[in-house]
Amino acid sequence: MAVPAPAKAVRALEATAAALVLLWCVHFRGGLALNSPTNKGLIFNVHPVLMLIGLIILGSEAIMSYKTLPWNRGTNKIVHLVLHAVALFLGSFGVYAAFKFHNESGIDNLYSLHSWVGLGAILLYGLQWVSGFATFFFPGASPTLRRAVLPYHARAGLVAYVLALLAAELGFLEKITFLQAGAAGVGRYSSEALMVNFTAIVVSLLGASVVLYVTAPGQQNEHILGYSAVHKP
Amino acid sequence: MAVPAPAKAVRALEATAAALVLLWCVHFRGGLALNSPTNKGLIFNVHPVLMLIGLIILGSEAIMSYKTLPWNRGTNKIVHLVLHAVALFLGSFGVYAAFKFHNESGIDNLYSLHSWVGLGAILLYGLQWVSGFATFFFPGASPTLRRAVLPYHARAGLVAYVLALLAAELGFLEKITFLQAGAAGVGRYSSEALMVNFTAIVVSLLGASVVLYVTAPGQQNEHILGYSAVHKP
Ligand code: HEM
Ligand code: HEM
Repeated sequence: MAVPAPAKAVRALEATAAALVLLWCVHFRGGLALNSPTNKGLIFNVHPVLMLIGLIILGSEAIMSYKTLPWNRGTNKIVHLVLHAVALFLGSFGVYAAFKFHNESGIDNLYSLHSWVGLGAILLYGLQWVSGFATFFFPGASPTLRRAVLPYHARAGLVAYVLALLAAELGFLEKITFLQAGAAGVGRYSSEALMVNFTAIVVSLLGASVVLYVTAPGQQNEHILGYSAVHKP
Repeated sequence: MAVPAPAKAVRALEATAAALVLLWCVHFRGGLALNSPTNKGLIFNVHPVLMLIGLIILGSEAIMSYKTLPWNRGTNKIVHLVLHAVALFLGSFGVYAAFKFHNESGIDNLYSLHSWVGLGAILLYGLQWVSGFATFFFPGASPTLRRAVLPYHARAGLVAYVLALLAAELGFLEKITFLQAGAAGVGRYSSEALMVNFTAIVVSLLGASVVLYVTAPGQQNEHILGYSAVHKP
């Protein structure tokens, strides 16, 4: 089965976003590190990279998996749940990096809108994964209950995904605003600022494409839209 | 016809958000003014108030109008297009206030992610209004074309609405970050900061409620989901 055209467009946006965030953190922000006695900024840099490549990009692939993967429903389901688990793990580790940076730099935790939305997104994502696992994989609900839950699972999953996108957009704006307001003295129209804004625009196009693609009216969407009670093999 | 329960919840969120943004600008930020020789911040304050109460809240009501209004389709359509026109007008005036504040304070225009997303949202909103007016009102397309365009109109309208919501979230974060980083010295956990973050959370709950409500699977959504080609009287 060939990869559908909208999924190809999504993948081009994913590759662009991943390249841009890496370029930003390595070229402009000095690189990534899990430990750094002198430059705590390197610990912070782990955060945007893992949130974007881990949570958002792998999450996007997981959301599209029933439409992009060539295997049967059972195999696709395993890929779907494993991709979401990896996204959640990398995302949680990325949040840990943000807290580590704050704690080692003596900066308050959880004061910003970004951190509130971000924590909410991670918690909802985790809740969604656990309830999806219990309902559709192990121990698994009765076929009747699965059919009833599926549209809610799909819609709640999109809510968690959109919340993660919102957190990422807020994060990019907040970080570049800190850099512009503080001692770093990054210029308003500097190439770094334009690049960060551009990365955020690519991420929002990516998110819009994924949501519009998986909710597009058509044959494979009955479970999201809640019309069909037919269980596919 | 009674107002449906989800619309009542949306209205409670709208009233809360409107009260909070007014309280913020009047109590913490000194009030609103269209002209002010000494305190340019008062000109700025017009911006969040008009964007939220004008564009977002009136826009939310316009989007829900086919489900909340008791009249026939023709009357509801006129209310829908007039509400969107007023939302667009107040939103454009709110953007004008932001530019006026920038120009009179010697601050650059259009450097931030917020301003890029915001301008994009207003432009898309305007384009959507004009194309909807031409297709469904005057001169109006053939019934066949209307039926074909309707799902795209509804989906594109939601994209413009979500973009406006994203702009608002970015705006709240940006403004409070300026206040925390600059001479204003607003504290990270100050009541003003908590109130602005809380306003932004209410706005995101409002947006999520509107989108989930109008896209909920059910009898009146065929035109959004693109399943039904039946023209309602
Ligand atoms: C889905 C994505 C994201 C989630 C769930 C998320 C979550 C979080 C959380 C929970 C914190 C609070 C850490 C603490 O209080 O100690 C935080 C901090 C931070 N994040 Fe993110 N983040 C995401 C993406 C991003 C991105 C893409 C950036 C871009 C640079 C970013 C920039 C920041 C900054 C600057 C901080 C420190 C200031 C603050 O607490 O707001 N984040 N993030
Ligand atoms: C749908 C809502 C909104 C839209 C479409 C929008 C649009 C814009 C635009 C186009 C500008 C650029 C003005 C210039 O460059 O001279 C701007 C500036 C600004 N807006 Fe908004 N805005 C919205 C909501 C808000 C809200 C709710 C706040 C909260 C306080 C806010 C805060 C700001 C700030 C601080 C600026 C000046 C800094 C900058 O240019 O980013 N905005 N807005």
